[in-house]
Amino acid sequence: MSEALRFQEIILKLQDYWSQNGCLIWQPYYTQVGAGTMNPATYLRVIGPEPWNVAYVEPSVRPDDGRYGENPYRLQQHYQFQVILKPDPGNPQELYLQSLQALGIDPREHDIRFVEDNWESPALGAWGLGWEVWLDGQEITQFTYFQQAGGIVLEPVSVEITYGLERIAMALQGSYNFRAIDWNEHYTYGDVNYQGEKEHSIYYFEKAGVDNLRSMYDLFEKEANTCLDEGLVLPAHDYILKCSHTFNILDTRGAVGVTERQALFSRMRDLSKRVAQVYLEQRESLDFPWLEKSAAMAALPEEEQLPLDGAAGDLPSEAQSLLFEIGTEELPAKDLTSALQQLEKKTISMLDNLKLDYDSLKVMGTPRRLVVYINKLSANQPDTQETVKGPPAKVAYDADGNPTKAALGFARGKGLQIEDLKVSEIDGGEYITAEVFTKGKPAAAVLPEAFQELAASIRFTKSMRWNESNVAFSRPIRWLLALYGGEIIPVRYANLTAGRTTRGLRFHEPDTFTVQKISDYFEFMKNQGIILDREERKAEISAQILNLCESIHANQELDEDLLDEVCNLVEAPTALLGNFAKEHLDLPKEVLIDVMKKHQRYFPMLDKEQMLPNFITVRNGDEEHLSTVARGNEEVIEARFKDAAFFIQEDRQHKLAWFREKLDTLTFHLALGSMLDKNKRIEKISADLSAFFDLTQEETAAVEKAAFLAKADLVTNMVVEITSLQGTVGKYYARSDGESDIVANAIEEQYFPRRSGDSSPRSKVGLIIGLADRLDSLAGLFAANMAPSGTKDPFALRRAAISIIQNLIEWESDLDSKQGLQIAAKYLPISIKDEDLEACAAFVQARLSNFLLEQGYQYDVVAAVVEAQGNTPHRASQAAEQLTQWIARKDWTETLQAFSRCVRITRDIKEQYTFNEQLLKEDAEINLHTALQTALQLERSAGSVDDMLHAFTPMIPAVNTFFDNVLVMDKDQEVRENRLALLQQIVSLADGAIDFTQLEGF
Amino acid sequence: MSEALRFQEIILKLQDYWSQNGCLIWQPYYTQVGAGTMNPATYLRVIGPEPWNVAYVEPSVRPDDGRYGENPYRLQQHYQFQVILKPDPGNPQELYLQSLQALGIDPREHDIRFVEDNWESPALGAWGLGWEVWLDGQEITQFTYFQQAGGIVLEPVSVEITYGLERIAMALQGSYNFRAIDWNEHYTYGDVNYQGEKEHSIYYFEKAGVDNLRSMYDLFEKEANTCLDEGLVLPAHDYILKCSHTFNILDTRGAVGVTERQALFSRMRDLSKRVAQVYLEQRESLDFPWLEKSAAMAALPEEEQLPLDGAAGDLPSEAQSLLFEIGTEELPAKDLTSALQQLEKKTISMLDNLKLDYDSLKVMGTPRRLVVYINKLSANQPDTQETVKGPPAKVAYDADGNPTKAALGFARGKGLQIEDLKVSEIDGGEYITAEVFTKGKPAAAVLPEAFQELAASIRFTKSMRWNESNVAFSRPIRWLLALYGGEIIPVRYANLTAGRTTRGLRFHEPDTFTVQKISDYFEFMKNQGIILDREERKAEISAQILNLCESIHANQELDEDLLDEVCNLVEAPTALLGNFAKEHLDLPKEVLIDVMKKHQRYFPMLDKEQMLPNFITVRNGDEEHLSTVARGNEEVIEARFKDAAFFIQEDRQHKLAWFREKLDTLTFHLALGSMLDKNKRIEKISADLSAFFDLTQEETAAVEKAAFLAKADLVTNMVVEITSLQGTVGKYYARSDGESDIVANAIEEQYFPRRSGDSSPRSKVGLIIGLADRLDSLAGLFAANMAPSGTKDPFALRRAAISIIQNLIEWESDLDSKQGLQIAAKYLPISIKDEDLEACAAFVQARLSNFLLEQGYQYDVVAAVVEAQGNTPHRASQAAEQLTQWIARKDWTETLQAFSRCVRITRDIKEQYTFNEQLLKEDAEINLHTALQTALQLERSAGSVDDMLHAFTPMIPAVNTFFDNVLVMDKDQEVRENRLALLQQIVSLADGAIDFTQLEGF
Repeated sequence: MSEALRFQEIILKLQDYWSQNGCLIWQPYYTQVGAGTMNPATYLRVIGPEPWNVAYVEPSVRPDDGRYGENPYRLQQHYQFQVILKPDPGNPQELYLQSLQALGIDPREHDIRFVEDNWESPALGAWGLGWEVWLDGQEITQFTYFQQAGGIVLEPVSVEITYGLERIAMALQGSYNFRAIDWNEHYTYGDVNYQGEKEHSIYYFEKAGVDNLRSMYDLFEKEANTCLDEGLVLPAHDYILKCSHTFNILDTRGAVGVTERQALFSRMRDLSKRVAQVYLEQRESLDFPWLEKSAAMAALPEEEQLPLDGAAGDLPSEAQSLLFEIGTEELPAKDLTSALQQLEKKTISMLDNLKLDYDSLKVMGTPRRLVVYINKLSANQPDTQETVKGPPAKVAYDADGNPTKAALGFARGKGLQIEDLKVSEIDGGEYITAEVFTKGKPAAAVLPEAFQELAASIRFTKSMRWNESNVAFSRPIRWLLALYGGEIIPVRYANLTAGRTTRGLRFHEPDTFTVQKISDYFEFMKNQGIILDREERKAEISAQILNLCESIHANQELDEDLLDEVCNLVEAPTALLGNFAKEHLDLPKEVLIDVMKKHQRYFPMLDKEQMLPNFITVRNGDEEHLSTVARGNEEVIEARFKDAAFFIQEDRQHKLAWFREKLDTLTFHLALGSMLDKNKRIEKISADLSAFFDLTQEETAAVEKAAFLAKADLVTNMVVEITSLQGTVGKYYARSDGESDIVANAIEEQYFPRRSGDSSPRSKVGLIIGLADRLDSLAGLFAANMAPSGTKDPFALRRAAISIIQNLIEWESDLDSKQGLQIAAKYLPISIKDEDLEACAAFVQARLSNFLLEQGYQYDVVAAVVEAQGNTPHRASQAAEQLTQWIARKDWTETLQAFSRCVRITRDIKEQYTFNEQLLKEDAEINLHTALQTALQLERSAGSVDDMLHAFTPMIPAVNTFFDNVLVMDKDQEVRENRLALLQQIVSLADGAIDFTQLEGF
Repeated sequence: MSEALRFQEIILKLQDYWSQNGCLIWQPYYTQVGAGTMNPATYLRVIGPEPWNVAYVEPSVRPDDGRYGENPYRLQQHYQFQVILKPDPGNPQELYLQSLQALGIDPREHDIRFVEDNWESPALGAWGLGWEVWLDGQEITQFTYFQQAGGIVLEPVSVEITYGLERIAMALQGSYNFRAIDWNEHYTYGDVNYQGEKEHSIYYFEKAGVDNLRSMYDLFEKEANTCLDEGLVLPAHDYILKCSHTFNILDTRGAVGVTERQALFSRMRDLSKRVAQVYLEQRESLDFPWLEKSAAMAALPEEEQLPLDGAAGDLPSEAQSLLFEIGTEELPAKDLTSALQQLEKKTISMLDNLKLDYDSLKVMGTPRRLVVYINKLSANQPDTQETVKGPPAKVAYDADGNPTKAALGFARGKGLQIEDLKVSEIDGGEYITAEVFTKGKPAAAVLPEAFQELAASIRFTKSMRWNESNVAFSRPIRWLLALYGGEIIPVRYANLTAGRTTRGLRFHEPDTFTVQKISDYFEFMKNQGIILDREERKAEISAQILNLCESIHANQELDEDLLDEVCNLVEAPTALLGNFAKEHLDLPKEVLIDVMKKHQRYFPMLDKEQMLPNFITVRNGDEEHLSTVARGNEEVIEARFKDAAFFIQEDRQHKLAWFREKLDTLTFHLALGSMLDKNKRIEKISADLSAFFDLTQEETAAVEKAAFLAKADLVTNMVVEITSLQGTVGKYYARSDGESDIVANAIEEQYFPRRSGDSSPRSKVGLIIGLADRLDSLAGLFAANMAPSGTKDPFALRRAAISIIQNLIEWESDLDSKQGLQIAAKYLPISIKDEDLEACAAFVQARLSNFLLEQGYQYDVVAAVVEAQGNTPHRASQAAEQLTQWIARKDWTETLQAFSRCVRITRDIKEQYTFNEQLLKEDAEINLHTALQTALQLERSAGSVDDMLHAFTPMIPAVNTFFDNVLVMDKDQEVRENRLALLQQIVSLADGAIDFTQLEGF
């Protein structure tokens, strides 16, 4: 690889390339930034309507990526090459790919992919949609369409391309360690930067003065505010960047707690927004002077006017096939699935509305295209004959039977003679009517608008704008193809007009293809290796993978979600097997799997429970140069595993208990103390809760130990890096510290269920510390006025409540959640007001309602049980089940009505009357009393609906007879109140079980 | 100029050029720096023995250069292109000039000059020698040979080339305002940076929070120290840079006083030195790994071995001419003058030592060459015959007259037979002698070593090293030419061997010339327009200038110093006339002249006292493209005048009295308060001093007013920019505020004499406030323990004392300097200890001694008067003059001895005896007493030596008779003490006039 470009040559080439492509070449910023985005040449210039094309290197400093120079890929400082194209030139992906070719990367020899990666910077009030660009599995570039910055919606949208220069150099030079990169002919990257990596890592991780940095942060912020008050945008921005870098160091030092992070971020965001706003005002006050450059700067030649040859041509007279293709930049996996579903449904209803017949319809798609194929679509809408109602006959004709102005007007409106009108009887009245004949339109005439609407009707969870049409879509639409038979349907959408040109698989010749016959289209796709049909593609991938699994005797179970995702990432799939060094198998399995699946979309390989040192990835393309692709992917995963190993190695210099002490550096919440404080509360709450669970001695001891270590792993490097491994890492470390399995497992299980659909803790120990943790969070944060509001739920309290509910239900525990909150409240450093505790309990009940609704219970059933016993989720859940079955019975109405009669007459009475058997006079009331005594003698378990109704239903005849024969509201107050007291006793049968008033039909 | 490179293209070109020339292309640093030098790629990498060639852009931030974007040249942020070549490749100037050509600058069309500019950064503990490179008068590059960094002597030396990219772009594009520079095809420099210039200027000058910044400085410093304690070089360096930038902002805000500046600088320097030291240790501990790259990186091909054709050739037999040329990079003007003087003297003595005859000798030189021409230099040394003394005859021969071993050895040592020895009488003893004949050597054999020694013997005030020979010279020597007749004298020096090749005027073809005959050399120089002889060149320049002066009717008086300097800046002079806009004539004349002479070496043009809007500059080269050169120079001076106008305009928004209040932001000394405090003290001291000068009422009022405004101009922008204009600026501003001339002038005159040789204040008012200022400084700083020690004199107290002395003498004032110090001490905010006041007075006396010695008085005279009346400089000065004349008299010895007798016998007696005339017995003593009475009755003025001696000399006979006839030390104590008392009275005649004991001959 001696001819590969050296590091500095890569930079010079990119500068030349983008300079020649109209970019202003800018310089790195003079204060530490985490990314080129923060350079004002991006952050400010993307705001407002003025054009701006710029390119520059940005040495980007990210303290927490420091690895003492020992990781092959991760660096506390890496070099970005940043490009901004504003507005979108229309072909930014192509411009980018050509730049790779200028660097000597032959795309045919690699797997180059655009993998969804959306970007959001809360600190900058900015977000955008786009991709990571992968080169053989390695992320080499971030490609983003900026939608918003500093809280301002961007018009036009800017394209941001951020090259990772080290990654590109490694790929080009075939040296998979930053230290080995040739910087120029004499020096390596390691020569010039290794020492810095080492020293800065030591500084950031170990030595930075936390108090000093906090003081700096405050000073920077003060100066930023001074500047903003004076309208000084750039000096203010400088200080925000300094705040940001200072924050990053504090964070790397492990000195920033969750709440403090929130607070600091919010302060930075406020400043950033002000900067953006003032910048925009400033440019506006100057009348956006660069707007006049727009014409000169249009990067792309005017869009070629596609010949609308079909539009004016002869219209087909017979049914023809129709092909509609929306050509896009790479769609995210989920968006593709959703778009295909929508397209199918909406195409059907569209054709239905248009009254166009067809033989069959198929919707297909890949990341780069959404395709609708309609077989034998009618050439014409059918003609229709319709009776149209006019004014009433008596208005239409005068007394003489002559048509009035109303009739004449109606006829004229329908294009008919007065003679053509009839009088018909409609809904019992007489009206004049007309028979209106509508000639069906040719399909070719109605389809353009219909398909435009079809395209516009597709919705995405997150959509983006890219050009001045301001159309919103998942990703930019770059071409439209619409053919009916052999003719173009000139659908216009998003500044495009449909033609007959499609594009092939990236980097495969020919790049574009002109479709004469629709069958040619499918032929072309096949030749390119593109499998248009999603299911077919999935089957193919699955087969390829299983084949490879077999070759290494791996389990042939595929993660269905991953398979779905991967299927949506490729047009022409080729699965390949990669290996990694066996030594990585020493890493926890969860880590290996997490890294492979989440980061790389690899299929991990297992032999039964045992990890294998292999993975399977699916390349987009054919089998050419597959070994190069495999090599690249292997290097990537090696580096990622090394990174994980680095963290674990760092961590394992200490026992888990050591980390527990460090929890005091992690703020949980200002009013609630550090995570160490929280951990201590968990210990106490767990001890109290243990009483509610029938624990063995061993379990009781395990609760104590597991609670002691519960949160310790939060400050380990491994968890700081991959937060989703919290608990799991604790489990591994506890075990290697010699803790028992029950303790180790509990540390992991406290987080179960991790997400909706996940299972509950397998042990009571895990259950208890999980409950303790969540009860503490709920009670504490409600006490601290941090209750969720609207969509804001920064501490995920909804999730906490739901987990409590799910776990209590699955463990069939009758624990009262409100009581649990009271226990937790005892140990808080602040007191909780009664109304806050009530609100908190109500909040949990509301989650219980949702939970039960999601289980499929009727809303009234849910309301009835939650109202009655909402603090005991397990019982409520059982009650809902029982009640549902009762309601399903044919005699339910009778039961409901009988009980309702008792309720209705008593519910508005505040007082509880005293019952006196002596006052009973009439038989019916005496019988009712007897029946009630029988019911009351039955044994009932708390909250049981069955027990309650088994007690009540035998009383129904007595209830009915009572109401039929006895006047409750007797004139004699004593008698009246005695009867009401009897009924109150009956009604109270449902207490703690069902609130009948909530039920439908009550 | 549409084909001129755009700003970004200049950068890309330079990156390409230096990349191709073996440089590593580096990136701007990620924290604000004032210059690329501070980037660790320069600051650290120049340390130690390892090779390092690097080039990079550096956006350089200098807050106090901010001009709100309104000055055409000055920017708070400008872009440098920085190149480091380590070691010196041997041809760095040529590499640099080729890079200019690569940018499209045709050197033939311009005046490109290397103008001495040495670089020193106290904050970095670094210095180097080099030049500013001028393009048509405009500084476009700094070129420096680094000698030291972080206090470490650099081996090898690094070449630093720092391009000012804006300047180059302006010159290339012909747009003499930064805002008009084309950055790329769409944007100007102003488009992208004007707003920043405006905002940052406002921030730095008006809004930056002084307290916040001070706190930041302290925090940065703390972190730097933490890092250094841990050996973390790069993080420490980052924080030092942050200190430095913060300091610069504070300074721009006018918040740093003289002493605080000292303190902060010293703190930064200490840190920088530690960083450098730790870096060096670090590299050393790694065994300087890059040393092995040295061979591969040698930038220049091995130096071509000059053919030593003459060395081995036939030796001439007759006298020949000799030519010796030391070819250098551009020598500083003063060094050239000095080198020529030394060369002449040393060549003569060299030839004398060599005993080589010659007809005549001429030493010539230009900035690029030192030339010795010797006419008819003997081809051979003369043969010599010499008598050599051996051992004494009695040792040489034994009793038998046979030669001993001693004699044999002596003969053998001289290469003689024993028979050749003789016995001769020398200094009264007998010795054996030998007649030794020495054959004269050929000149060609002895000249190589002699010329090497000659070259090595030249000394400079500041000299530098550049290559591994470690030879020190004013600037690098790049070639040697040495011809004797037609043959080469192979002089070896500084890694060079002399040949017959010389170089011509830069950029004139041919670049090099091979000299066959010496006369060809002079012919070649003439053809190139080079005037080798300094005086001839000076005359030519003078004639050209006067010619131009005449053309515009300007005064024909040339500043001789400037003429001398300019003569040393060019080889081939062409004077040209430039103009500037008449509006600048509104600026103070001193400003115009200062800017033209000091910054640009222009001859200012005056018509009588009136400035003309013209200047003359002398280009190095011929008349080709003279208008381009003139245009460039005119743009430069325009910008400089605009800059001055900017300051004055800013200043004139306020009265001078307003600035006086701002003096409180300027610390004079921590213990002595602000400059406002000092100003107030000056007011009080001036008022007190007024009593000692015979002032009119008007003058008294003027003292008060001038003192009030004395220091106000120190905080004006104009003085902050050009400190040497302090006082002068105050004068102009005071006048335009409506103050009287006497007040305005006094504000300027307080600083007189500005330097040694300068004149004293013209008015008493100026004299008084100047005295007050200096007395305050002296008393105050001695009180604050800041007395000068060794070479340290940060407050220039020596200069202050000398000025007091000079002024009192010139104004013939009898003011007692110690009394003045006591007055000053009264108003200090701290009390001064007696011993400190004594020390301060003694310090002033010591300066007086020096002053008088420099006036040419004998050391004993000076000691005698200073000892007697050192606190009254004026009287002491008169006394020294008078005493000198007395000493010159023939009868002085008699006088001295007579007085001495009186002194010697009494000086050890501590007690002062009482004289009683009644006790006189002998005639001689009675006569002496009578003579004394006569002397005492004479009127004498204080300190007058004349008066004292006129009184004493008549007593001499009586004194002598007394001592001859009277025994002073009589046995009778009463008599004895009475006689001593008489003598004590005589001795006291000299009190306050002369201390006779100091005199020679006493």
